[in-house]
Amino acid sequence: MSVLVDDQKLLNFIQSVFETFGLSQNTARICADNLVMADLRGIPSHGVARLKRYTDGMKNGVIFPLHNPKVVQQTASTATVDANDGLGQVAGHFATRLVVEKAKNTGVGIVTVRNSNHYGIAGYYSNMILQQGLLGISMTNSAPLVVPTFGKEMILGTNPISLAAPTLQNRPFFLDMATSVVPRGKLEVYDREEKSLPQGWAVDDKGKVTTDPGQVLHNMLNRIGGGILPLGGEGELYSGYKGYGMALLVDILCGVLSGGAYADLINAPKNTKPAPARVSHFFMALKIETFVEKKIFQTKLDDLINRLKNSAKAEGEDRIFIHGEKEYERRDHYMKEGIPLQNKVYQTLESIAAERSVQMNIKKSAHD
Amino acid sequence: MSVLVDDQKLLNFIQSVFETFGLSQNTARICADNLVMADLRGIPSHGVARLKRYTDGMKNGVIFPLHNPKVVQQTASTATVDANDGLGQVAGHFATRLVVEKAKNTGVGIVTVRNSNHYGIAGYYSNMILQQGLLGISMTNSAPLVVPTFGKEMILGTNPISLAAPTLQNRPFFLDMATSVVPRGKLEVYDREEKSLPQGWAVDDKGKVTTDPGQVLHNMLNRIGGGILPLGGEGELYSGYKGYGMALLVDILCGVLSGGAYADLINAPKNTKPAPARVSHFFMALKIETFVEKKIFQTKLDDLINRLKNSAKAEGEDRIFIHGEKEYERRDHYMKEGIPLQNKVYQTLESIAAERSVQMNIKKSAHD
Repeated sequence: MSVLVDDQKLLNFIQSVFETFGLSQNTARICADNLVMADLRGIPSHGVARLKRYTDGMKNGVIFPLHNPKVVQQTASTATVDANDGLGQVAGHFATRLVVEKAKNTGVGIVTVRNSNHYGIAGYYSNMILQQGLLGISMTNSAPLVVPTFGKEMILGTNPISLAAPTLQNRPFFLDMATSVVPRGKLEVYDREEKSLPQGWAVDDKGKVTTDPGQVLHNMLNRIGGGILPLGGEGELYSGYKGYGMALLVDILCGVLSGGAYADLINAPKNTKPAPARVSHFFMALKIETFVEKKIFQTKLDDLINRLKNSAKAEGEDRIFIHGEKEYERRDHYMKEGIPLQNKVYQTLESIAAERSVQMNIKKSAHD
Repeated sequence: MSVLVDDQKLLNFIQSVFETFGLSQNTARICADNLVMADLRGIPSHGVARLKRYTDGMKNGVIFPLHNPKVVQQTASTATVDANDGLGQVAGHFATRLVVEKAKNTGVGIVTVRNSNHYGIAGYYSNMILQQGLLGISMTNSAPLVVPTFGKEMILGTNPISLAAPTLQNRPFFLDMATSVVPRGKLEVYDREEKSLPQGWAVDDKGKVTTDPGQVLHNMLNRIGGGILPLGGEGELYSGYKGYGMALLVDILCGVLSGGAYADLINAPKNTKPAPARVSHFFMALKIETFVEKKIFQTKLDDLINRLKNSAKAEGEDRIFIHGEKEYERRDHYMKEGIPLQNKVYQTLESIAAERSVQMNIKKSAHD
């Protein structure tokens, strides 16, 4: 069961909620835009369903909404930013503007961020870079949910990677992927629907593959053992160590390079009360014409996309997708028809509206 | 059946073979070192077993051994290099020295290369960057062997990614991975041993998963349809579109950004005679102290490694590996005991020695 909401009304409402924590209109807008973009792209796990975790975080000393990010070290092309336990979206936006400026000036910008919080979808920032005409990369480490190959402790996050690159004819290439085989949200869906997990998504407290989503989620929540597998699955047969390697690549470029937190230092279980999450990010922007005429780049990328899309399909399939394509189409549809919010999410927003004394008028109407 | 050979003797022999094509001692040494390093690390598919493909390539107009790479465009931090259809190792070495120089000067270096040939293992170059005290990344596109999700044509290469990063206490982190679930060499091993493929490695001419390695190899060779699956396997259940996305990320940063060839333009089947392979590469070097004190980086990376290694093991496993670890141990062993070369490979080297009138004395003896 879901409620259809209007993306612009939703944006205004979420902005108003963030403003009640003392954020400026501009800054609150950034945070709202980040969450609504996730819903529009069909990634509800990172959308407004997460608002309560942000508002709770701001109330409980996990996130300090008025702490501003600061550059602690920089060169013409690089910077290290300390987010000072502020909002991940604020630090991410700050770092992305900085990385764009550096790339425009020198051809390349690389900015790492430490002591941040959950910054929403990685693609929000690579897309911001893309909107400036540059090639954008965004990565973040995250709360530990993933076990290493041959292990059974959750040491690594789902550590996503995003790359956005401009085209002329097609919609921009827009990759935004976790380095785990699935996100936790997928296990929750299987649990709700009482379905068995596919072999190779998750391991139990012995570190062996299990198909019981309820048990895995219980074990993960209580850190009993087991968790989600890296892309490629269990052991070495399907090269799970490659997904594990990609997760480490992200953690090294984010957590280690920023001088911040990495691995399970984030949300370490010894913290009995909520403590800052200490997430780290990595952003990179490339001014394409520094390497090759931009029109050549765009034409070649279009051709690459077309060759893939026009290539022969596997039996039973009628379409080959390019990364971002499904999400662009979903966004178009949701902007026109409204975003379907689960009833439970809608009710949570209502309770936040009441608590923060903010008017909530987000339902899609015939006039929207 | 195999022959034990001495790595230093092998290096000298391979160097001598390259010298017969007019390469300088220095340049021939680089090419030899690249191949022998692969054997020492236990990646024989990219080792001296490949020498014949290089010598054939140099004889047949695929590789022009005396063509030198040239910088076609550059800034303080970036460059685009045209390899002029020369040896991939020569272009790779040239670009890596350039990227190191730029990173030392400005904090970051990024160099793309077009019109190159097979450059050996990606890790050769990230390791070169590491040896200069920097964080190194190396990627390349490659001959099309991989089908996109829902497709059945080999459009993408196995497009590897390598990252090497310095530590203090442990051996350096050294990731070097293809973005496909397995390399072609793995299918060949299963074919020789008459074993069924695991479900999810490769698809047949209908684009459906097959367990018949002989059929897949035959179809791949003749481009009948089917090929290797991206990391994550078939369809969407195990997120094969993520491996497909990583392969595209590599192709965009290598082939598209360099203004070179990408996807199946490399070795396009319409070329009835051998033609230049037109491989593209991407190199990146980061001067760590530009972001954070180097000792802090190294200490944190050591800690990350230690946390992983000391974490609880899955039932039946007694060790968690870090990327590069197995290969370092194999190198130590092979340097001491000799590298086991398959008889067939040894015989091919003998025939190359005869053809090029080069002395071959590579067997490991008690004195080595």
